[in-house]
Amino acid sequence: MVPLEAKHRSLLDYAFYPRHVAVIGASEQPVSFGYHYLKHLIDYGFGGEIYPVNPHKESVLDIKAYPRLADVPGDVDFVICCVSADMVLPLLDDCTVKNVKVMHLFTARLSETGRSQAIELEKEIQTKATRLGINLIGPNCMGVYSPDAGVSFAYGLPSEPGNVGVVFQSGGAATLMIQTAALRGIRFSKAVSYGNAIMIDESDIIDYLADDPKTEIIAAYFEGIKDGKKFIDSIRRAAQKKPVIAIKGGRGKAGTRAVSSHTAAIAGSSSIWKTAFNQFGVIQVRDLDEMTDLLVLFSGLQPVRGRRLGIIGGGGGKGVLAADLAEEAGLSVPPLSPSMRDQLKPILPAIWDWLSNPIDFSIWGDDAAKAGAVHHLFVESPDFDCIIMQVSDDNPMRDDWWVIVVQMEVDSIIEMFRRRAKPVVAVLSAARPGYDDLEDIRWRTIMQQRSRLTASKVPTFCSIREAVHALSKFVSYWEKDK
Amino acid sequence: MVPLEAKHRSLLDYAFYPRHVAVIGASEQPVSFGYHYLKHLIDYGFGGEIYPVNPHKESVLDIKAYPRLADVPGDVDFVICCVSADMVLPLLDDCTVKNVKVMHLFTARLSETGRSQAIELEKEIQTKATRLGINLIGPNCMGVYSPDAGVSFAYGLPSEPGNVGVVFQSGGAATLMIQTAALRGIRFSKAVSYGNAIMIDESDIIDYLADDPKTEIIAAYFEGIKDGKKFIDSIRRAAQKKPVIAIKGGRGKAGTRAVSSHTAAIAGSSSIWKTAFNQFGVIQVRDLDEMTDLLVLFSGLQPVRGRRLGIIGGGGGKGVLAADLAEEAGLSVPPLSPSMRDQLKPILPAIWDWLSNPIDFSIWGDDAAKAGAVHHLFVESPDFDCIIMQVSDDNPMRDDWWVIVVQMEVDSIIEMFRRRAKPVVAVLSAARPGYDDLEDIRWRTIMQQRSRLTASKVPTFCSIREAVHALSKFVSYWEKDK
Repeated sequence: MVPLEAKHRSLLDYAFYPRHVAVIGASEQPVSFGYHYLKHLIDYGFGGEIYPVNPHKESVLDIKAYPRLADVPGDVDFVICCVSADMVLPLLDDCTVKNVKVMHLFTARLSETGRSQAIELEKEIQTKATRLGINLIGPNCMGVYSPDAGVSFAYGLPSEPGNVGVVFQSGGAATLMIQTAALRGIRFSKAVSYGNAIMIDESDIIDYLADDPKTEIIAAYFEGIKDGKKFIDSIRRAAQKKPVIAIKGGRGKAGTRAVSSHTAAIAGSSSIWKTAFNQFGVIQVRDLDEMTDLLVLFSGLQPVRGRRLGIIGGGGGKGVLAADLAEEAGLSVPPLSPSMRDQLKPILPAIWDWLSNPIDFSIWGDDAAKAGAVHHLFVESPDFDCIIMQVSDDNPMRDDWWVIVVQMEVDSIIEMFRRRAKPVVAVLSAARPGYDDLEDIRWRTIMQQRSRLTASKVPTFCSIREAVHALSKFVSYWEKDK
Repeated sequence: MVPLEAKHRSLLDYAFYPRHVAVIGASEQPVSFGYHYLKHLIDYGFGGEIYPVNPHKESVLDIKAYPRLADVPGDVDFVICCVSADMVLPLLDDCTVKNVKVMHLFTARLSETGRSQAIELEKEIQTKATRLGINLIGPNCMGVYSPDAGVSFAYGLPSEPGNVGVVFQSGGAATLMIQTAALRGIRFSKAVSYGNAIMIDESDIIDYLADDPKTEIIAAYFEGIKDGKKFIDSIRRAAQKKPVIAIKGGRGKAGTRAVSSHTAAIAGSSSIWKTAFNQFGVIQVRDLDEMTDLLVLFSGLQPVRGRRLGIIGGGGGKGVLAADLAEEAGLSVPPLSPSMRDQLKPILPAIWDWLSNPIDFSIWGDDAAKAGAVHHLFVESPDFDCIIMQVSDDNPMRDDWWVIVVQMEVDSIIEMFRRRAKPVVAVLSAARPGYDDLEDIRWRTIMQQRSRLTASKVPTFCSIREAVHALSKFVSYWEKDK
């Protein structure tokens, strides 16, 4: 059905690295997607030719416009179609005139509506595009984000590229995930939201990302699949080459119903997906937050080759709960070895015998030099495979002192992380202040230190529960690699 | 062992509502706890007599000081002891002179060190205090927070009182939980951190809170228990009277070890705790974040008497995942009934047949009037027991428009919540921006809207996963109530 089997890689390159892009339905109305897509090309610095197509305008956003695609000078690599569904069939003829390789149909209200007329029209579009050799992304999707090329499907995505490739059936979910992950320092090589997938489907995009040298990790969200055999081949091959973190959307009754009205996909049995993912070494997660947590580890941390955690920082209750949650997540929190105790003795002569793992920082107060020495000891110890450093947000000091303690702890975390002697993960405050709470120096400090940790690329979590859950999956991945 | 069995209620009143408080070891050194506790009495506006005790100072923080407790004029209800363990035995004699009812021993480094000399000293303190009739809180704990009385054990706790009573073995964990929960609008009647619990123990405090008219919900964190039979009687009785949300700390191997060096508690089998909690209708949670989520529901929402969720807002992918997560948490997401569709038809004539539950707001764009009408329809419908309203943080509009859309959605959520026609819960963004990210209007807006929702007392979660998980436990609680 998709005419690009053999050479889909070069074909998707026309979408990721186009030389000329036409926006059909380009507009100056700021609520229109014909405005958004054109604006994105301008804002994200697309370097090639931009052709707004609009029969009623001489120019759109100060760029010369053309009444029809056929009127554009020369060839066009990539078309972004924002007009309504009934205008797509004639547009396909224009595409052949301009040698268009790939067209993204933002255009929606087709089979996902469940209405017979719309389903029929979608089929006609598919048949005609196939016959003419125009490769479609969509319909009913957000399309392409390629920061290297200055192509984007949303506001607020990073313009700086990175190492995560995204293949998401839902563009809204992709936008949310990319924006949220960007706050945690993650950057992306490219992203495709592919919607109803009547031609270019999930497998084509996975194949591309698997071979893409700029993509080191793949993040995927599927609602249904178009071709099971093709999908299995693609995902298996991709997962052999790089980590694939995937969400299956539509796992239950209501989700399956929602999938059908969202992208007209057939959700399929949740247990089949799970089995397949497990078999191929795909890291399955349940939602965007869990996906982001894993991206933080995969894009920022060296492999963790064992389950023995050293947990530093925070007071007694926090340490107890950290130990519980770590073990419940399948990690281990071994006691301090005699050799560790021997090394602790000169640092903390009064309490070396009493300290344990997790190590309770509240016992010896806030001596920064000692804290640094203990950090070193943990990071250098062969007894641990990974170190979690909890910032002392439970420290009972007066605010001005507390700010200094937290600042010093974060200094030390950044230093330990940079040494790379061992995988180091930070945990900083589950609190979610509102804007008004920033008048309080505590919450302002937490947010300032979060910015520092992110800028230093330290994998940082907001709670020990999220940290150990993600770490456990991360370790499982590298265990398979043994 | 505890001499206050019969009249513990009035006795703990001396700690929660003291008329005269002495701080032993009162200091002007801002790293000292003798400074902190005195400062708290001043800062939180304690209205009774304050007696700093320090043999070397005429006054401390501008309050007349006394060399010994025995030198203080008149009686003293409540003593906060911040001096070292070797000074406690003679202090007990002074307590009898001043008719002290309750003494909080912040003093630590006793049995929790695991050292025989310290264990021995703790026993002597216990024996002598019992003999003299001085009721001890602690040792090795943060003590008492009673906002009504202006007594506090930490900085940054709300001075405004509320309806949650806290009994926490760990004071650091209590501080963290109270501070974090306060950001979400929760307020507290009183809190006790009771540490090694050599006299006043968890059961005494639970009994007090169970009978306290100002406490409507009890939040508890236990590491071990002193007297199993007494504890079972107390917790059973408390759970019959009000919701009790409890964490057992020290559930695994490492946690049990940590508990022993933290509060010298014997953790006990995790499964026995679980069984007991289930049997008595105690809501068991795993960590402070989950506890806070439940406090948000219990202190702000009317009972939810069924599992049928209506989910509003957000785009398709977000809706699909919301449905999956809700069902996985044991809730149901029923399809729209024929009657709901009939009512939708005049509001959204072009798409009424296509919409579903979760209802995808991205389909019809951003018509505020229509959104309001749909909100009404859901909130009034007998088909749902609870409504989750997701703010459209995945909306692809230009920032300035997006800000308006989000603002209008939050307006509508607040209005729906206030009408109280049905339980309404809001979900607003899992993103955790750092301070530097606030330059971006999106994150600033999210945080501003979070402040608005909190100020309006709408139970607000940062992710649908956390919301449905907490809701499911909340519904289970009210099912038992049937």
